[in-house]
Amino acid sequence: MEDKVNLAEKLASFDEAFQPRIVATYNDNKVQLAKTRGEFVWHSHPDTDDLFLVVSGRLTIQLRDRDVELGPGELYVVRRGVEHCPKADPEAHVLLIEPLGTPNTGDSDERAAAVEERI
Amino acid sequence: MEDKVNLAEKLASFDEAFQPRIVATYNDNKVQLAKTRGEFVWHSHPDTDDLFLVVSGRLTIQLRDRDVELGPGELYVVRRGVEHCPKADPEAHVLLIEPLGTPNTGDSDERAAAVEERI
Repeated sequence: MEDKVNLAEKLASFDEAFQPRIVATYNDNKVQLAKTRGEFVWHSHPDTDDLFLVVSGRLTIQLRDRDVELGPGELYVVRRGVEHCPKADPEAHVLLIEPLGTPNTGDSDERAAAVEERI
Repeated sequence: MEDKVNLAEKLASFDEAFQPRIVATYNDNKVQLAKTRGEFVWHSHPDTDDLFLVVSGRLTIQLRDRDVELGPGELYVVRRGVEHCPKADPEAHVLLIEPLGTPNTGDSDERAAAVEERI
C-alpha cells in the first residue's frame, strides 16, 4: 500500500546536491526531489520535457537566450530539445518530473548522471 | 515564448470548485490547478494514474478501503483503475497532473466533466 509523500520530510532525508531522489511515480514518469547548489551542466533532453517546481529557495533556469527565475510555488517546463542549465545561489529545493530512465544530465557528458534512487 | 507559472497568481484568477484549469503542459500531460470544496464524485481513471499535490488547505482522497489525508506540500498518486473521491472541508487548492484529454470525472456519469481550459 503506497502512502502519501510529504515533500519536507523527504527533503530532510538527504543532502547531496544534484542527486535527485525519486519520491513517487506517475504513469511512466519519476517524481523527484532535488537539492541544487551552484551551477549544474548545460544539457538538453531530446525526447522529453522537463518540469521544475520550486519548493524552497530560488532557482535560475539558464536558457541560451534568457534566464527564468523561480521562487517557491513557481514552475516552469523546459521543452524537449531546449538547452538549459539550472543554478541556485546558495540553494534551492525542487520537485522535478521526467520519464523514468531519463538521465538528469540529458545529452551532456560533462558529469555522470545521477543513479535513480527511490526514497 | 512560454513563461513561468506562479501557482498563487493562477489560483487567484478563478473561484469555481472542481473546475481544474490547465496552467502548463508536460509532454502529453496537463498540469492543472483546482479548487475543491465539499465532496466530488466517486470515479476511477482506467488508463492513467492521477497525481495530487496540495498547495493549501486540506484534501481527503477517499479510497474504498481508507482515506488519504493531505496537507500543504503533500502529494499522492492514485493508481489507474483505483476508485477515489476527493473531498475538502472547507476548501483545498490542489495541483493535479493527468494526461491531456482525461475527464476529471473519470468513468463516472454522475456529473459533467470539466471543460479543459488553459489559463
